Amino acid sequence: MSTTTGALRDIRIQDSFWSDYIRLIRDVVIPYQWEALNDRIPDVEPSHAIQNLRIAAGEEEGSFYGMVFQDSDVAKWLEAVAYLLESEPDAELQRMADAVVDLIAKAQREDGYLNTYYQLKEPGNEWTNLCECHELYTAGHLIEGAVAYWHATGNTKILDVACKFADYIGTVFGPEPGQIHGYDGHQEIELALVRLYRATDEERYLQLSRYFLDERGRVPSFYDREHEARGHTHHWESDFMIKKKSYSQAHAPIREQQTAEGHAVRLVYMCAAMADIALESGDASLLKACRNLWNNIVTKQMYVTGAIGGMAQEESFTLDYDLPSDTAYAETCASIGLIFFAQRMLKLEPDSRYADVMERALYNTVLGSMSRDGKHFFYVNPLEVWPKACGVNHVYDHVKTVRQGWFGCACCPPNVARLLASLGQYIYMTNDSTVYTHLYIGGEADLMVGDNRITLKQHSELPWQGNVQLGIRTDAEKGAMFTLALRVPSWCTSMHILINGVPYMADIDNGYALIRRTWMDGDRIDLSIPMEVLRLKGHPLLRETGGKVAIQRGPLIYCLEETDNGEHLHRLYVGSFQAAETVFEQNVLGGVQVIRMEASRLSDENWNGELYASNVNSLFEPATATFIPYYAWANRGEGEMAVWVRER
Amino acid sequence: MSTTTGALRDIRIQDSFWSDYIRLIRDVVIPYQWEALNDRIPDVEPSHAIQNLRIAAGEEEGSFYGMVFQDSDVAKWLEAVAYLLESEPDAELQRMADAVVDLIAKAQREDGYLNTYYQLKEPGNEWTNLCECHELYTAGHLIEGAVAYWHATGNTKILDVACKFADYIGTVFGPEPGQIHGYDGHQEIELALVRLYRATDEERYLQLSRYFLDERGRVPSFYDREHEARGHTHHWESDFMIKKKSYSQAHAPIREQQTAEGHAVRLVYMCAAMADIALESGDASLLKACRNLWNNIVTKQMYVTGAIGGMAQEESFTLDYDLPSDTAYAETCASIGLIFFAQRMLKLEPDSRYADVMERALYNTVLGSMSRDGKHFFYVNPLEVWPKACGVNHVYDHVKTVRQGWFGCACCPPNVARLLASLGQYIYMTNDSTVYTHLYIGGEADLMVGDNRITLKQHSELPWQGNVQLGIRTDAEKGAMFTLALRVPSWCTSMHILINGVPYMADIDNGYALIRRTWMDGDRIDLSIPMEVLRLKGHPLLRETGGKVAIQRGPLIYCLEETDNGEHLHRLYVGSFQAAETVFEQNVLGGVQVIRMEASRLSDENWNGELYASNVNSLFEPATATFIPYYAWANRGEGEMAVWVRER
Repeated sequence: MSTTTGALRDIRIQDSFWSDYIRLIRDVVIPYQWEALNDRIPDVEPSHAIQNLRIAAGEEEGSFYGMVFQDSDVAKWLEAVAYLLESEPDAELQRMADAVVDLIAKAQREDGYLNTYYQLKEPGNEWTNLCECHELYTAGHLIEGAVAYWHATGNTKILDVACKFADYIGTVFGPEPGQIHGYDGHQEIELALVRLYRATDEERYLQLSRYFLDERGRVPSFYDREHEARGHTHHWESDFMIKKKSYSQAHAPIREQQTAEGHAVRLVYMCAAMADIALESGDASLLKACRNLWNNIVTKQMYVTGAIGGMAQEESFTLDYDLPSDTAYAETCASIGLIFFAQRMLKLEPDSRYADVMERALYNTVLGSMSRDGKHFFYVNPLEVWPKACGVNHVYDHVKTVRQGWFGCACCPPNVARLLASLGQYIYMTNDSTVYTHLYIGGEADLMVGDNRITLKQHSELPWQGNVQLGIRTDAEKGAMFTLALRVPSWCTSMHILINGVPYMADIDNGYALIRRTWMDGDRIDLSIPMEVLRLKGHPLLRETGGKVAIQRGPLIYCLEETDNGEHLHRLYVGSFQAAETVFEQNVLGGVQVIRMEASRLSDENWNGELYASNVNSLFEPATATFIPYYAWANRGEGEMAVWVRER
Repeated sequence: MSTTTGALRDIRIQDSFWSDYIRLIRDVVIPYQWEALNDRIPDVEPSHAIQNLRIAAGEEEGSFYGMVFQDSDVAKWLEAVAYLLESEPDAELQRMADAVVDLIAKAQREDGYLNTYYQLKEPGNEWTNLCECHELYTAGHLIEGAVAYWHATGNTKILDVACKFADYIGTVFGPEPGQIHGYDGHQEIELALVRLYRATDEERYLQLSRYFLDERGRVPSFYDREHEARGHTHHWESDFMIKKKSYSQAHAPIREQQTAEGHAVRLVYMCAAMADIALESGDASLLKACRNLWNNIVTKQMYVTGAIGGMAQEESFTLDYDLPSDTAYAETCASIGLIFFAQRMLKLEPDSRYADVMERALYNTVLGSMSRDGKHFFYVNPLEVWPKACGVNHVYDHVKTVRQGWFGCACCPPNVARLLASLGQYIYMTNDSTVYTHLYIGGEADLMVGDNRITLKQHSELPWQGNVQLGIRTDAEKGAMFTLALRVPSWCTSMHILINGVPYMADIDNGYALIRRTWMDGDRIDLSIPMEVLRLKGHPLLRETGGKVAIQRGPLIYCLEETDNGEHLHRLYVGSFQAAETVFEQNVLGGVQVIRMEASRLSDENWNGELYASNVNSLFEPATATFIPYYAWANRGEGEMAVWVRER
C-alpha cells in the first residue's frame, strides 16, 4: 500500500493565516537569500557560496571562502525555489535557478565529485575527515535540492548531477575491500538518498542509505580510524566531535540507541532517514528504534513549543527532563527536523500524536523563528528571556533578544524557507482507501485515493477559531468510496462533525475521526473544534516547570511579554482560568488572539530593602496577565518574555 | 580613636564547634599544603612553587613552572603559618617557615624585585603587563605574608624583604615623570601596603596604596596604554581582561562605581583596601564609595549563603537580582574577601549588618568549602546541584558535586587556611571605651579597652544553641569602666541578657546591645539568643527564589540532600513550619542539628507519561523534609542538594 502526501503542484494553500507566510517566502525570503548567496547584502557576513561554485566551475579566479558546508546553502535555496515553482510557476525565478543548475553542473568534477571546499581548498584530501567536514551532508543537500528541482521543473541536468555524484559516492563507500567503511558526522545523505531512490527507482541509492545507517556507531569507531589515518589532525578548534561519539549519534549502533543524545539536528535528520528506510523496507527493528527515539524526545526532552536540544554548547540534547527555559538552545533547524521525522512516522503508522508534535513545532518554534517582515530570524528559540541579563551573564551568550538579519552559519533561514515553501506536503496523506487530514490549513488539494481522483477544499479559521469546512469534489458520478480521517487535535476534548449539515458521530482511531462512506461531489463536512484556554502543566519530573503553568489555545502556545505586562514578568502569578478572556486584536502584531486573565503581582511594598527576610508574607497586588502567541514574540522591540508562569 | 581587633596571640579559641576546624588547619591543611608546594603529593597537579624560588635563589638549575602568580601560594602558606605560630608556638613549624623566609630573601633581586615568573621566564619584561600578569598581586601576598610572619615571630628578615620590595615598587610606580602611572589587574597590593604601613609606620606605603586606588579606572585606560606599548600582545588565551575594563573594576574611578561589577574576588579585595584607606585617612568620599558597593552587594548581589559572584565565566558578578542557584560560581575566595571587607567596615562604623554578613559568609560558604577531613575543597559553591546533569549539560561544567583534592589554580584552599588560622581576629573589636563582640565563638581574649587590660572569656553553644556566657577578668581593683557591645544577630528577634544572674535590658545601637558599666573581676553575662527555624524568602525581584523558601537557624543556612530525602528534590514542597523539629544527631556528619518538617511530594501517579498535560491537578503525597546545615553538604557521597525549596 503506497502512502503519499501528494505533489505540491496539486496542493494550493489559500489560508487566511499561512498564505501570508508562504507569500513572504516567495517575495522576500528567497530573493533576499539570493542576494545573500551572491554577497550583495551590505553589513552581513559574506556568503561567497555562488562565487565558490563559479571558481570551481572555472568561470572565475579566486579561492574558497566559508564553512566546509557552504555549498549546502545554495542547495537549500534551490530546494526552496523548487517548491515555489512547483506550487506556482514563475519564469524569471526558474531562469535564475536554471542558471544555478548550469553552474553546479559545470563545477562538478568529471568523476561526479562536487564540493567546492575540497575542490578549491583541499584537493586530494577528499573523504579523509567525514567526522568533522560535512562532505556527505553537503552532498545530501545537493541531492535533495536536485530531486526537488527536477520534480518541480523536469530539469534532468540537475538530476543527472545528483545521480552521478551519488553513483560516485557509491563507489567510494561500501562494504567491499578498498571502499571506505564509514559515514558522515552530520546525517543528511541518508534521507537524501531515499529521495533519490524514489525519484529514480534505483535500488542502489536505497541500499547506500541503509549502509550508512547500519555502519553508524560500529566499534571500533570509524572516526578514530580515519583520525589516525590522517595523522590525528582535526578541522575545528577542538577535537570534541571526534572524541565525543554521541555528539553525532555514533556512540552505539542506531538500533540500540534508546535516548536522544547529542546534536539535535543530526539526531532528527537521522531519525527521518531511519523512518524512510523502515517504510521502504519494512524493517521492524528500525521502526522500533524510531519509536524509541521518538518517545524519548516527545515524552522527556521536548519543550512545550516543540523545540528540542536544550544546550547551547554542542547544540545538543542533554538528559531526560532537563529543559531550562532561559538557557535553552532550541534551534530552529532541530524543530524542522522533528517535523521531517513526524511526517515520516505518520506514513509508517498514522497516529495523531505524530501530527500533534508536527503542529506544535510548526506553529510555535518554526513560525516564531521568522519575523513578520521575513527578513529576520531566530536561530535559538528560548522560552524565557531577560534582556537585561543577556550580554551580561554569559550563560545567555547564545540568546538573541530580537531576530537577526543573517548568520555566519546560515542553516536556519533557508531551512525555514524550504519547509514553508513545501508546507502543502504536510497537510494531507493518502493511501488506497483513506485520506488523512493532519493539519487544518485552508486551500485546495487534488488527491488520489485508490483509483479515485478527488479534490478536497478546506477552509480553516485556525489558529484563531476551531471552525473548519471541508468540501469534496469528485467527477465520479457514483461518488468515491474512501475514508476521510480527520485528526482530532490533542488540544481539544471533542470535535463536532456535521456532514452536509447533519451531526455525525465518528469512530476515533489513533486520534483520527474516521468517516467511511461514498463521497459525492459537493459533500461538505463542518468541523467545530473547541478551543479552550488550556492550563498546561509540565511532568512532575521537569525541574523547570514546577509551580508553573503554560497557556495553550488551539495549536498555539502563549507567552507573556514585557510590552503588555511591564517588567519583572516573574512577579506575575496567574490565577483562575474561569474568567480568561480571549479577544482578537486586529492592531496587535498584524492581528492575533490575545488572552487576558486575572493575575497577581508579587509586591515589594512590605520589603525594607533587604535581600532576604524571614516572617515576610508574600504580598500580592491584583493584576491582569496579557498573553500573546509565542510565535509573535519580539516583534515589538526588545523586552522580557516568558512561556511558563507561576500560578497561585 | 584607634580600633583594634587584638593580636592573635591574645585570643585563644576554645570552642566546641570551631576548635576542630582550626586544629584541622594546623594538623592537616598546612602540612598537606607544604607537601603540595614541594610537589610531593601524588596524582595532583604539580605546584613547583618552592622549586621556582630555589631556582631564582640560585640553589637549583631549572625553569619556571606554573601560573604567573605561583609565588603567591607560598606567601599565603607563610601567612597562615604565621597565624598558627602566633596563636600557639611550634618550633618545628617555625623552623620550616624560617627556611622559607631564607629562601625568599635569597631569591630577591638586589634592587628588591621578587617574582620568580619574571625573573626566570621573562627577565626584562617586568612591569609590562600589569593588567594580566598579577605582578603586584603577587607582591601584595608576599607583603601580607611577611607582615604576618614578622608580627608572629619577630623575624625581621622577611619584613626587610617586604620593605625593600615595596620601596622598589614605590620607585617604579607613581605620579612622577618616568614612573609608571598604573595599577595591577588583580587588586591585593593595595591592602597589603596598608598592612605594611601599620607594621612600619612608614607613611609612604599608605600613600602608594592610595595612589594605586586613585589611578584605577582613569581615562585613557592604563591597560590600553601598556597594551600598545608592549606591541598588543596578551598573556592569556583571550584578551578580554584587557578589553573588558569592568572585569577588574577599571571601568570607572573607584569612587564612581555604584554597583559591584566584574571578578568578585578582585572587587572585594579592592573594597577592603578602600575601607582601610578610609579608616586611616578619614576620606569621606572613600567611605561613601565603600558603602555604595557594600550595599549593592548585600542587598542585590549576594547569595543567602554569603556567596558572591554568580557567573562562572569571568568568575564575576553579573547584574542586580541575578542569582541562579544551580549555575552559581560563588567562589570560596570571594566570600573570604567579603569577610575582609566586612571586618574593615566594622572598624569604620560598628554596625551589626556588617558582622551579620561576615557570619553568614563564614558559617556557610567558607566553612562549606572544606571537607571534614581538611583535605578536600570546593572552589565553586552552588546552592543547588543535580549530579546527573553535571558533566552532561555544559552549563554546569564548573560545578563539582564533591570536594576536590587540589586545583591547578590553587587560590582557595590556602585562603581558607589563612582565614581560619586568623579567626580570632574577627571575634572582637575594641576601642578606647568599647569592647565589641561580633561573633559568638568560645575562648579567652586578652583585650585592651582604653587603659584597661581585661580578659574576656566566652563560652558559646553556637551554632547549635543560642546560649553564650561571657566572663570578665580584670586586675583593676576598682573594676574597669567600658561598654560591652554585644551583637544582636539578625536571625533572632530579641536577645535576653543576664548580668550576674540579673536580667538586663540593654539599649540597642546599630545592632549591638550596649552594656556600659564598671566591670568587676568575675562579672558574668549570660546571653540567650532564641534560635528559631526561620523561613527565609528572597526579595520579590529575585527571579530564582519566587515561590521558594530557604531555611535558616541561627547563623546556619540549611539545605536538602538526596541522601536524606530521595532523588528529585524539586518535587518536595515544604509546608507548615509550626511542627518543625530540630534534633541534634550525633551520628550525622560528626554531629549536626537536623531539621525535619512536614512536606508534600509532587506525585506523578496521575500522569500518563505525557510531558505536558492540561487539566491535571497537582497531586501531592505527604512527606518529611530533612534539612542539614549547608556547610555539611556533600560529605556523604554524591547526590542532589538544594537550598531553596518550593513551598505550599
